[in-house]
Amino acid sequence: MLLRSALDFGFQVSILDGNPACTSAPFVRNFTLAAPTDEAAVYAFGKTQDIVTIEMENVSVAALERLEAEGVQVFPQSQVIRMIQDKGLQKDWLLQNGFPTAQGIVISGKEALLATSITYPMVLKSCRGGYDGQGVMLLRTEADLANAFEGASVLEEAIDLHTEISVLLCPASGIPEETLREAEDLARSIAETLGIVGLLAVEMFIDTSGRLLINEMAPRPHNSGHHTIEAVVTSQYEQLLRAICNLPLGSTLTLLPSAMVNFLEPDTSDATLSGRMIDQLLRISGAHLHWYGKSGGKAGRKMGHVTIALPTLDAVHSTMRQVQAVLEAE
Amino acid sequence: MLLRSALDFGFQVSILDGNPACTSAPFVRNFTLAAPTDEAAVYAFGKTQDIVTIEMENVSVAALERLEAEGVQVFPQSQVIRMIQDKGLQKDWLLQNGFPTAQGIVISGKEALLATSITYPMVLKSCRGGYDGQGVMLLRTEADLANAFEGASVLEEAIDLHTEISVLLCPASGIPEETLREAEDLARSIAETLGIVGLLAVEMFIDTSGRLLINEMAPRPHNSGHHTIEAVVTSQYEQLLRAICNLPLGSTLTLLPSAMVNFLEPDTSDATLSGRMIDQLLRISGAHLHWYGKSGGKAGRKMGHVTIALPTLDAVHSTMRQVQAVLEAE
Repeated sequence: MLLRSALDFGFQVSILDGNPACTSAPFVRNFTLAAPTDEAAVYAFGKTQDIVTIEMENVSVAALERLEAEGVQVFPQSQVIRMIQDKGLQKDWLLQNGFPTAQGIVISGKEALLATSITYPMVLKSCRGGYDGQGVMLLRTEADLANAFEGASVLEEAIDLHTEISVLLCPASGIPEETLREAEDLARSIAETLGIVGLLAVEMFIDTSGRLLINEMAPRPHNSGHHTIEAVVTSQYEQLLRAICNLPLGSTLTLLPSAMVNFLEPDTSDATLSGRMIDQLLRISGAHLHWYGKSGGKAGRKMGHVTIALPTLDAVHSTMRQVQAVLEAE
Repeated sequence: MLLRSALDFGFQVSILDGNPACTSAPFVRNFTLAAPTDEAAVYAFGKTQDIVTIEMENVSVAALERLEAEGVQVFPQSQVIRMIQDKGLQKDWLLQNGFPTAQGIVISGKEALLATSITYPMVLKSCRGGYDGQGVMLLRTEADLANAFEGASVLEEAIDLHTEISVLLCPASGIPEETLREAEDLARSIAETLGIVGLLAVEMFIDTSGRLLINEMAPRPHNSGHHTIEAVVTSQYEQLLRAICNLPLGSTLTLLPSAMVNFLEPDTSDATLSGRMIDQLLRISGAHLHWYGKSGGKAGRKMGHVTIALPTLDAVHSTMRQVQAVLEAE
């Protein structure tokens, strides 16, 4: 989706990715097959570029630091990525800067965890590599410790979750005005404290008492913002390009009410996202299909999404129900 | 812009183009550098593809016919392209099928033209290769014959032009309702008579008496439809992909009022589209920049466009004035 915006601006793009089936690879001239955590490969790749950005945090920060030192523009800046990619550093940063977040401590590993006195329930988050709910577990009783992560983790209080939101560009419906404003102020304050150049998504919890708590940050285009392509004057992707290329930022005016439905690969081996389903989705007026072209197989893997952007919220809701009906019939 | 839609659908795209600086080339894995009129090259390229389409009419139809005969899906069909790429065949087809168009005859060449009795003024259109006003001349007096095209041409009556419109997907403002409906009916009837699979733009004149006359057809994405990306549920590019891939056609509902402003390379050698101008355009809220990334130089060459799509027509107009002011200050 970032490539789409690069196409609009006539920019040349190169990609480094560890997956030979990377769905964007066919759309760039220069595709480098290497793990983004491979310092030598990221450094060699970056040296050929004017500007480097990321679409996931789990990258070699050491390579980015060397590139920055040698004059390559790296956005978001390496020190922002270094902090955010480690949930322990991120938790410490939030607490030290006085931002509301669940109380938590960094635990160096499983042995240290077993030696810690715990008031159940607590939440355990692996410091590295978590994504889409992976790397997070609820510790209900002592028995759950058996499955605890081996490496460094954040041990934090379990909150009484009411809603999860993220602040990016686009206001959500169904959230009290005051909470929205508070969330936006918080996100802006975090971005300013970070001094980040690029995009920042701030994931927050609203607990049952209405309190906002920062869950985590993502310094990149975020799943919750895909609908900005269709519904907002400037999409999150175009905004990222504007930010890192030192162009004026675009308007974040919302043009149309919108909603988004994700497709996950089913978890039964005999079901798969079928051509018939895609055909049915394409018949729904106002449902924009974004199909990532991944080869399927792994249950729960995100295969694409549909954005619905229409003149009224009623039309969005009824169209969303049509999309869900197609997915549920599958 | 077609590539953007291919990205959304996860399709693999290959491109054949005669320009090594083709602005889409960096975004495909398989770029073939060859003239689209080169029969052997087009045939060899097409043999590696499942589906072949065009973005300009001036291509080797002989190659497309061979590909069709050997089972490659070619859309629009070769016989449609063969007829439309020759303005003489196109004029004959329109007249034979009873569609309203300026009366005209096909002239085999300049010698035949000089032997023809002409009631001035008349319009002369080269049968082959015309584009964006090139290949068309007004014959006011006998003196203009000196500059007439050497090759086959269409000689047709000069009409009293009031407005030029094209029918594609998106209704125009400021055209009487009845004329719009008539134009749509005409375009639909032409598409059905052609039996075309793909996109068809029908360019029409409205003369001073309000009569609709077909100017010409274009069996491909059309300059007049770029704004469908931002303003219509299904863009002309996505619709083309749906049509040629035998997917259900998308909704053509207009979501937002819109307008489009083209950038042409200035015709004075010391002026060029500057970075400062692009910077100013990017500051205008609601102006979507599509910069083609072409290297400049040739006066009058289209370098990009801006689409404005906003909730009200007033907002569109005032934003369009801001865009025009930036271009005029240049």
